[in-house]
Amino acid sequence: MKSEISTGRYEDSVLERNESKMINAMDKLIDKIKETNNPTVIGLDPRYEMIPECIRNKYAENLEGVAKAIVEFNKALIDEIYDVIPAVKPNVAFYEMYGLQGMKAFEETCKYAKEKGMIVIADIKRGDIGSTAKAYSNAFLGKTKIGEKEESIYDVDFVTLNPYLGIDGIKPFIEDCEKYGKGVFIIDKTSNPSSGELQDLKLETGEEVYTKVAKLVEEWGKDLRGEYGYSSISTVVGATYPKQLQDLRKVAPHTFFLIPGYGAQGGKAEDIALGFDENGIGGIVNSSRGLMCAYKSDLWKDKYTEEKFAKATRAEAIRMRDELNSAIKKRG
Amino acid sequence: MKSEISTGRYEDSVLERNESKMINAMDKLIDKIKETNNPTVIGLDPRYEMIPECIRNKYAENLEGVAKAIVEFNKALIDEIYDVIPAVKPNVAFYEMYGLQGMKAFEETCKYAKEKGMIVIADIKRGDIGSTAKAYSNAFLGKTKIGEKEESIYDVDFVTLNPYLGIDGIKPFIEDCEKYGKGVFIIDKTSNPSSGELQDLKLETGEEVYTKVAKLVEEWGKDLRGEYGYSSISTVVGATYPKQLQDLRKVAPHTFFLIPGYGAQGGKAEDIALGFDENGIGGIVNSSRGLMCAYKSDLWKDKYTEEKFAKATRAEAIRMRDELNSAIKKRG
Repeated sequence: MKSEISTGRYEDSVLERNESKMINAMDKLIDKIKETNNPTVIGLDPRYEMIPECIRNKYAENLEGVAKAIVEFNKALIDEIYDVIPAVKPNVAFYEMYGLQGMKAFEETCKYAKEKGMIVIADIKRGDIGSTAKAYSNAFLGKTKIGEKEESIYDVDFVTLNPYLGIDGIKPFIEDCEKYGKGVFIIDKTSNPSSGELQDLKLETGEEVYTKVAKLVEEWGKDLRGEYGYSSISTVVGATYPKQLQDLRKVAPHTFFLIPGYGAQGGKAEDIALGFDENGIGGIVNSSRGLMCAYKSDLWKDKYTEEKFAKATRAEAIRMRDELNSAIKKRG
Repeated sequence: MKSEISTGRYEDSVLERNESKMINAMDKLIDKIKETNNPTVIGLDPRYEMIPECIRNKYAENLEGVAKAIVEFNKALIDEIYDVIPAVKPNVAFYEMYGLQGMKAFEETCKYAKEKGMIVIADIKRGDIGSTAKAYSNAFLGKTKIGEKEESIYDVDFVTLNPYLGIDGIKPFIEDCEKYGKGVFIIDKTSNPSSGELQDLKLETGEEVYTKVAKLVEEWGKDLRGEYGYSSISTVVGATYPKQLQDLRKVAPHTFFLIPGYGAQGGKAEDIALGFDENGIGGIVNSSRGLMCAYKSDLWKDKYTEEKFAKATRAEAIRMRDELNSAIKKRG
């Protein structure tokens, strides 16, 4: 495990490692967080209504036009933030709702973010059994076999998964994580109001379902721990449940947290800091609308015109970064 | 609630109802099961390797070629079975693994099955929160808004969902079920070996997680019960767990079961019968490989050449239908 805080760029830290070994995806993500000094992921969840009119007006009001507008919007955001935010998290739902054209926009968005050196987390929350989980893993992390050939489809760095089917639904992904240096975030305690309906149920052992899931994920991920001690097999824990975030940091010390729920949903920086360890690592915080639509927010709308929407996102990214880092530092 | 067994075609039973009311999706499915006298759904999960060579050889060995081969294979199967099997269940994973071309094949498959009068269950097992669940529901059950216009994307009859996020992840679908006469199957006790890891956990109340989920689904679906007493908001319960199937029939009397796990996975007709009620309704049984690849099975491979693959599927569909009906009758 690394004890010092690396200040070098990702490429430097790679050189320190055994080159013959596949780079651990969680090490890659943590290196990138250190490089940008920012534990933030931007959720790229573009609905047509939130795209600035200066882009929307260029395209026809149909599925093809929307998809083109989404790609232009996402690329403009990525161009402006790739040096200050380490990762993007497109939620596939917001592309799938625009049909095949939307999925093309998803594919182009992932590709462009990777080209710019960002880590890509596809928020797909898939959960299915054995051979079906394998098919999903082929699509997003691994490769699809066609006769003797193999094709990469979306080839992202991480996906989100659902634990409800047990290890059968996770194992095919773990195998691809090992083979291709990828990672997964398994939803554990989600940020939404009704997340407790199942996740908070008390078991006869006295622990909650989400605690049990965290323990299962620690176990499932034990062979994929990287140099920082965190596993590529990690979890999603919402910023809106600070007590759970704090408890789970202890229950699952090798499990990195993808933390949604900051901002609009109510999660505060000081709550989020509870999910980080004494070295100031252990989590990455998602903001979707807060970053994408910064140009519409009370804080930035007077400083940036709609045409400067990407500059507003950059300003908000820097504000959010400083707020998070300050809270994490105070805690440590 | 209907007490007599309807023998008429679907169109007749529609006429008996209040025409101004949206037809309940579960009534529509049960009518179709009665019309074909077959509680079977064919899982259309085509992997390249399982498509007969006589089709594969026509197309290039690339993503576009695979997608075309899948569509030809699926259409040939549908042509041969649409009068004996009421519903198709394509699992989107097996299309997504072939990228955008694969999703195009998924779209064409759903459209073709609907044209032939079959009920389409998209096996997507989605589970996400509020606005994201709404985006998925737009894609599969409802419509997507673009400015003042609305577009149908996949427009299937049912989807499968995951309950792990609670009602927040289900409600947007329920609203579209009401608005568009659609339905959902929420996974409860799945057919895979490790399904118990979470689903069988004992709660402090003494009941298992899957029992709790069944009770939640009964509650969530109470306003969408149709004329047979079953709700359009129903569940998935595996044939491989007969005790649970029997228990859940009592716990959730208004919940229809989509039952996977017949055949290769080990579920037997007499086990499956436990999920049906005294009127011989209450479930629909999935077979994927057993039906799609009947032409390769010991039972049919000597009777049908590979070119007659669809006839083998029809023969197996009739054999399976008779086996299921006999077991359900014996129980009743």
